[in-house]
Amino acid sequence: MQRYFVNKEAVSDGVVTITGEDVKHISKVMRMEPGDQIICNDNDGFSARCELDELSKEKVTAKVLEQLNENHELPVNVHIAYGLSKGDKVEAVVQKGTELGASCFYPFAAQRSVVKWDDKKEPKKLERLEKIAKEAAEQSHRDYMPVVKGHHTFKEIIETGKQFAHKLLVYEETAKEGKHPVLFRALQEVKPGEALFVIIGPEGGISPREAEEAEKNGFLSVSLGPRIVRSETAPLYILSAISYHFEISR
Amino acid sequence: MQRYFVNKEAVSDGVVTITGEDVKHISKVMRMEPGDQIICNDNDGFSARCELDELSKEKVTAKVLEQLNENHELPVNVHIAYGLSKGDKVEAVVQKGTELGASCFYPFAAQRSVVKWDDKKEPKKLERLEKIAKEAAEQSHRDYMPVVKGHHTFKEIIETGKQFAHKLLVYEETAKEGKHPVLFRALQEVKPGEALFVIIGPEGGISPREAEEAEKNGFLSVSLGPRIVRSETAPLYILSAISYHFEISR
Repeated sequence: MQRYFVNKEAVSDGVVTITGEDVKHISKVMRMEPGDQIICNDNDGFSARCELDELSKEKVTAKVLEQLNENHELPVNVHIAYGLSKGDKVEAVVQKGTELGASCFYPFAAQRSVVKWDDKKEPKKLERLEKIAKEAAEQSHRDYMPVVKGHHTFKEIIETGKQFAHKLLVYEETAKEGKHPVLFRALQEVKPGEALFVIIGPEGGISPREAEEAEKNGFLSVSLGPRIVRSETAPLYILSAISYHFEISR
Repeated sequence: MQRYFVNKEAVSDGVVTITGEDVKHISKVMRMEPGDQIICNDNDGFSARCELDELSKEKVTAKVLEQLNENHELPVNVHIAYGLSKGDKVEAVVQKGTELGASCFYPFAAQRSVVKWDDKKEPKKLERLEKIAKEAAEQSHRDYMPVVKGHHTFKEIIETGKQFAHKLLVYEETAKEGKHPVLFRALQEVKPGEALFVIIGPEGGISPREAEEAEKNGFLSVSLGPRIVRSETAPLYILSAISYHFEISR
């Protein structure tokens, strides 16, 4: 069943009022009609199966049929700091990272980032990434939409990391040294409900200076196995591994 | 160090002769010169650090300096049958699936595949996918290039599966039933050196009829956790999970 995230204020007295771009999605893309059912989610724990009532150009109203008690979230909150890379890589990371359960994304300007976001570009970039995250969260049946933060410097990423008890740095050099089981041992330390902050470098990787800085600030360098994956593949690997560790291999 | 797969015949008497598109890559893209080093790999277990000797428009010769004894391969051979989907999804699956260690790809026409490959299109499609696999294998330091098979029907996929002792079907309905640990139990049955055949449906998923047919033929339905990932994300999840299981969580 198609899912839509709505504002908290959109739900009142058993009726959900949908406005904005979802109106077009419901009537034009999905071609739904009164009587059809959708799932509405307020991004704050409320989730319900609803029946479409009235559809107009400006809004859609739907009756709440049944509140749902679902849990599609990773047991661990994973925060991904991703070094800005060329092309639409950050978009792919947000889209697929959302499907794979990430809680928060922090695009950052790494030493080897070729792309930079300036203050003028940032609002548009962020708006687009938030839209991608919303759609991916709806499609993958997430209970919460991940948060996409405005871009950070590496220094700010290290600063943000201070709020986290568990923090990892994906570092190619660790792979070369063959220290693959470090990630497993690190995940064994994380308990359900806790948060994990992961830095993943841009195309070209994290620089030795950045790695040193991260390690000095309590980040544990981990390898993703003996192959060298592209920067945009690394977040997908680590999120899949975390899902496998906490949701599958029990 | 940049890597190149070469034909077996290209290696003779301590000299590697590189022809074809890699010549341009070495001289124009990488702007390398005599004396620069590369790693050459014959896709049959030979891997060596080499020094560039002569560069011309037609060929590059390189002296073997040192044979390498590397292993970047997944301990388990993973064969991915992927239902043809719209856009360049099969290309993304081959590229990222190669980075993540897949041995073989079988694009197939599923019941819900919107895209079809006709006999006329197939050679071009295949050539492109093979090029993507070669480049991804070089970039990710694979010791072997994965094989990309010409497209199959679903019936042929089931037939191919008969050669495999371990075979899985990624099926959304299994996720809805909450049977997540099945994948872990299945991987525990697979020993290093063995092969695993995995069917992943196209956009829209595997049909109930196909699922029934696969299960009747010894495929085990597995879930990739409680979220619904896109068709092109599923191969990346399962390859990451297999890497985590066999290479990391030891």
